[in-house]
Amino acid sequence: MAQKPSTPKGTRDFSPVEVAKRNYIFSTIKTNFEKFGFQPIETPSFENSETLMGKYGEEGDRLIFKILNSGNFFYNKNKIQLPESVTDLQINSAEKISVQQRIELNKFTSRISEKALRYDLTVPFARYVVQHQNEIEFPFKRYQIQPVWRADNPQFGRFREFYQCDADVVGSNSLWQEVELVQLYDAVFSQLKLNGVTIKINNRKILSGIAEVIGASDKLIDFTVALDKLDKIGEDGVKKEMLEKGISETAIEKVQPLFNFTGTISEKITKLGDLLASSEEGMNGVEELLFICDNVNEIGLQTATLDLDVTLARGLNYYTGAIFEVSAPKGVDMGSIGGGGRYDDLTGIFGLKNMSGVGISFGLDRIALVIEQLDLFPETVNATSKALFLNFGLEEAKYAMKAIAKLRQAGVKVEMYPDNAKIGKQFQHADKRGIPFAILVGEDEMKNEQFGIKNLESGEQEKVSFDVLLNKLSENK
Amino acid sequence: MAQKPSTPKGTRDFSPVEVAKRNYIFSTIKTNFEKFGFQPIETPSFENSETLMGKYGEEGDRLIFKILNSGNFFYNKNKIQLPESVTDLQINSAEKISVQQRIELNKFTSRISEKALRYDLTVPFARYVVQHQNEIEFPFKRYQIQPVWRADNPQFGRFREFYQCDADVVGSNSLWQEVELVQLYDAVFSQLKLNGVTIKINNRKILSGIAEVIGASDKLIDFTVALDKLDKIGEDGVKKEMLEKGISETAIEKVQPLFNFTGTISEKITKLGDLLASSEEGMNGVEELLFICDNVNEIGLQTATLDLDVTLARGLNYYTGAIFEVSAPKGVDMGSIGGGGRYDDLTGIFGLKNMSGVGISFGLDRIALVIEQLDLFPETVNATSKALFLNFGLEEAKYAMKAIAKLRQAGVKVEMYPDNAKIGKQFQHADKRGIPFAILVGEDEMKNEQFGIKNLESGEQEKVSFDVLLNKLSENK
Repeated sequence: MAQKPSTPKGTRDFSPVEVAKRNYIFSTIKTNFEKFGFQPIETPSFENSETLMGKYGEEGDRLIFKILNSGNFFYNKNKIQLPESVTDLQINSAEKISVQQRIELNKFTSRISEKALRYDLTVPFARYVVQHQNEIEFPFKRYQIQPVWRADNPQFGRFREFYQCDADVVGSNSLWQEVELVQLYDAVFSQLKLNGVTIKINNRKILSGIAEVIGASDKLIDFTVALDKLDKIGEDGVKKEMLEKGISETAIEKVQPLFNFTGTISEKITKLGDLLASSEEGMNGVEELLFICDNVNEIGLQTATLDLDVTLARGLNYYTGAIFEVSAPKGVDMGSIGGGGRYDDLTGIFGLKNMSGVGISFGLDRIALVIEQLDLFPETVNATSKALFLNFGLEEAKYAMKAIAKLRQAGVKVEMYPDNAKIGKQFQHADKRGIPFAILVGEDEMKNEQFGIKNLESGEQEKVSFDVLLNKLSENK
Repeated sequence: MAQKPSTPKGTRDFSPVEVAKRNYIFSTIKTNFEKFGFQPIETPSFENSETLMGKYGEEGDRLIFKILNSGNFFYNKNKIQLPESVTDLQINSAEKISVQQRIELNKFTSRISEKALRYDLTVPFARYVVQHQNEIEFPFKRYQIQPVWRADNPQFGRFREFYQCDADVVGSNSLWQEVELVQLYDAVFSQLKLNGVTIKINNRKILSGIAEVIGASDKLIDFTVALDKLDKIGEDGVKKEMLEKGISETAIEKVQPLFNFTGTISEKITKLGDLLASSEEGMNGVEELLFICDNVNEIGLQTATLDLDVTLARGLNYYTGAIFEVSAPKGVDMGSIGGGGRYDDLTGIFGLKNMSGVGISFGLDRIALVIEQLDLFPETVNATSKALFLNFGLEEAKYAMKAIAKLRQAGVKVEMYPDNAKIGKQFQHADKRGIPFAILVGEDEMKNEQFGIKNLESGEQEKVSFDVLLNKLSENK
């Protein structure tokens, strides 16, 4: 019954070296989350389907992994029979499905599946807050680092199972939180030595203001998508695209300053203030931006740059205030490595009104790719053993194991080669594992209560007492 | 569209305090895994169904959570049609299913589901070793700490989603590994201050030897189950049960020493040697036990006790050598808190022969319950912020945020109350969150570049410079 084993499409195994690298990033993020007062929660990998379905749009619903009811999954307490029409669903092509068939399929699915894998960490967090609202002390600063699953088509850097790292605050409208979230991005990327990231900021109210000014709320997305191409296709190209999308020449004229939207962040905000003077919501956005940017600048960032990007519109239907996105240092070809924003009604979908939230997310997989590309993983990241005791036979092994027990109690990572194999093979094992020292114990050493220690990089070898051995192996343990 | 939110049956949310406690246990286990030379791997949450199905017996297959194929799950590249008989599967009761219906159901399931959630960490590990055999340097010491899922009926201490913490070595028969695994249990439980656990050891070859001696291999389970009741029902009761199970009086006489199986572990092994002298396999088991116990005793354990338990037979069909089980300290009513053993053919199911493995597992949920019950969680386990800066208004907040940024860069966990709320409410927030210090900054403090620091437990309050503040908050950060 031999099978050729593999992992499912879009999923990955992580080797010891890969786990160590990922843990280095996770632990840097965690340390900073906690420095900023965020506390960890964890939610189950799967939720009741009704918790997730309908929260991510039609596309999202399709990409949620559903779990088959266990046992006799056709069995249903409410004695609902399978629909007669189920046999009509003999579809041989993903393309050929009709709307009616889709409805039948969804009905059938909901009968045989009542649970689904987490699609993101935001909806489970909202569910958590509502369910535990009486135990939670608000404002509640929580972080959550757990995998999520999406039935997307895998691509470079896109997987079906991946980790999200989220920090959110709920229960306060204070803009100091936006200030802190910018600082938090800066703290994490600075500690990762990923210097020179740009934290782009925008505000949903600015976007609404622009829509108001151009008199075309329904064209806002077309407008920002076109404007975003300014660098690539130039002012004329952008204007042409806008006209094609049905945005009037008068409208385009009104926002002419956006085509020359350069300068420092405060100069940009001043320009926006002029532009949006007629829009109350737009001016609210300008004020919010001003508070956040002024305070961030006054307190100062370590290595990141804050920049205003009026084309930034991620999750437009979701965010109600600040919008954030982080891009990798210049010269690295990678999309956003983090994002977030303010959403005024996080928990309303579960019946708890007026609970404003603001949060950010770190894109672990992309961050790992960037750090790899820039060769920024510290050398010490791979926590392999500090020394391998070679195995020269039963008595030598006993002597070695007694020393090993003491070294481990002192916190040193050491191990013994388990078999009395050829000595060359044992050295090779240490070498392939990247273990820096080999410890050799023969009759002589045993008699004199000593240990031969060989530095496998330099080739240096000496005989030392246990105390000296402990000292040598304790350096950078 | 308000819904009453809840988690699915058998799953749990973990609050910040609960996550902190669990992380304390995880991190203690990890530290010791690494001290003993084990390295982490991670595998995907779901595997291809054929990787898991048929590996855990019929009961196991039933308890594996299956994932519905995504998109149009009826669509199948091989154009297999739904069976005509699918409508025969309109079953209204879990009890009424016939064998034929079960077969049809399984066929249908395998058509609409090709992936399943991990059921344990051992089978994915075997798959990993076979898939990556050319990159792995053997002997391979790996640890893995990840959740697994089982569609079991939830009970006290039994969940549908729970973590397993496994350490295994593959690629060597050396009994030094068994010695180390006993030491590893001792190291973890000692560091957790869970003193006085008993590590019970047995050997599959001992059990085979006993079966040989009593001349009834098929009655081995009945025999060990009956013998295990010695404490409760006495020698006569046990013998009565054995006779009822069809074990002959002659057979029972032959193993008479097992009814008075007391003394030190070496005395017990001596008794076993006498008893199993006629069984070659039994004597192999005795020799293995002797090696392990002698060396464990000679090197010494910190707080655990090693004991031989000839009734220990967990996973009998699985283990081929040593069998381990850890029981909580006396007086704590909890089943086993860990277990493991040697399995000679871990990877054979995936086509890689002659790969002996030995490993142990830690039962996180039960360990957490025991530590809670004995009140052994350290007070410092809940990593909340060290200080809350109260918010007295815009200018004071600015002053505070500048100090906060510097404190965080120095590694101190601090936060500011985000809103200028009533001061009583802010103090209450610090109190409910368990934050030890409140920092007060008013006009006076700003003018003198000082900070008011109030110890919320003692009520003591003083005005200090930034450097003194940093010093005070850096203690036990």
